[in-house]
Amino acid sequence: MSTACVIVIGNEILSGRTQDVNLAWLAVELNKTGVRLREARVVPDVPDAIIKAVNECRAEYDYVFTTGGIGPTHDDITSECIARAFGVKYTRHKKAEALLSAHYCKDKLNAARLKMADMPEGATLIPNPVSIAPGYIIGNVYVMAGIPGVMRAMFEHVRLRLKGGKEVQSVTVSVFLAEGTIAAGLTEVQNRFSDVEIGSYPFTKESKFGTSLVARHEDVAKLAEVKDALLALIKSFGGELTTEN
Amino acid sequence: MSTACVIVIGNEILSGRTQDVNLAWLAVELNKTGVRLREARVVPDVPDAIIKAVNECRAEYDYVFTTGGIGPTHDDITSECIARAFGVKYTRHKKAEALLSAHYCKDKLNAARLKMADMPEGATLIPNPVSIAPGYIIGNVYVMAGIPGVMRAMFEHVRLRLKGGKEVQSVTVSVFLAEGTIAAGLTEVQNRFSDVEIGSYPFTKESKFGTSLVARHEDVAKLAEVKDALLALIKSFGGELTTEN
Repeated sequence: MSTACVIVIGNEILSGRTQDVNLAWLAVELNKTGVRLREARVVPDVPDAIIKAVNECRAEYDYVFTTGGIGPTHDDITSECIARAFGVKYTRHKKAEALLSAHYCKDKLNAARLKMADMPEGATLIPNPVSIAPGYIIGNVYVMAGIPGVMRAMFEHVRLRLKGGKEVQSVTVSVFLAEGTIAAGLTEVQNRFSDVEIGSYPFTKESKFGTSLVARHEDVAKLAEVKDALLALIKSFGGELTTEN
Repeated sequence: MSTACVIVIGNEILSGRTQDVNLAWLAVELNKTGVRLREARVVPDVPDAIIKAVNECRAEYDYVFTTGGIGPTHDDITSECIARAFGVKYTRHKKAEALLSAHYCKDKLNAARLKMADMPEGATLIPNPVSIAPGYIIGNVYVMAGIPGVMRAMFEHVRLRLKGGKEVQSVTVSVFLAEGTIAAGLTEVQNRFSDVEIGSYPFTKESKFGTSLVARHEDVAKLAEVKDALLALIKSFGGELTTEN
């Protein structure tokens, strides 16, 4: 089982201007590859904050994925910071430069756009089929764009390189019973299946309180057992199921 | 200017089951009180991860806000972890117990629900007008619910206690010009107004590329100057404005 951390880079997330959607998407997709997302951080466009987060997380997790800050403007400082974090030169990547040169006609290929080819020395490119300017890999750090459509396209390439484990499967049972009502019984189920991650999430629907019980594990047969136990628990309280899957 | 960090606690965010919306909301509301959100972390329902994040962040920022993990079920471990992070007893809070006792009729006030009154010793309650079980404050850490409606109601109480500074204002100018086109001129504007935070965010609209330029500062008069400079920059490229505010 490999582990991962996502670092979301950008003042716009911390000012509330932009609602991040990359984290939830990456969480789901990483899971499919058998890589478990263990932490996420959101940091501002401040060099020390980026460098610290990258160095702490790359030491702690198998994979680090960054989003944001690799565009052409003055506030795009991710690549320079990644180079500093790794203690390598921040330099023009020849292949990235060639890609940008081929894409932009000559009068549009200005210094700002060429900055998108400046990377930590030794970076391996991640193709960008949407808007050309590539992401890259250095060590265990995968540097991707912040724009969701571009990030997702980049991840389709990244996905093939990840060494994960089995995909974690889940079962969900949602019932019109309050969390507090079934909590004790749920603890018993959790204790019986101690290696299964069981979460309890309250909701309201049709003006009624309910709880979604989610069990997660690689082994589908074990999850089926857990589901039976959850259904038995619910039945013992006369709970009304609303969904199961 | 006070600083803050948000710690989002919960496996459901890191599995992608739940899209977090608390961070963006808190970012906007903290800004209104003059508190600047400098970092956010998402951690799983794992004691060591929660304790480490809380201790690192409470040492680094003026305020720490946690969301999630204070319900009645086995996976709600935030309070026990906060007590361990502070090195204080995890114990029943008499006033919280009284609130729960008054709310639940006797046959519903079980051990699981009473667990919501177990807190770090010395905690000061944050009222919960939605579902009664309170949040609390200990040191510079504000422990709130994960359910957005409950968290928001709790924050209305928290807001009054924060010592912030002036609210950061912003101006936004959106134009149908690519980031790479205006990047150099934008850097000049940023250098002229070095204490103003200027961000550049690409978008596509009506199948055209555009860029939103956002300037943030406490001083409205200074922002008006920045806006004039941004409009002049756009004009120099013959850019078509799409919105400004």
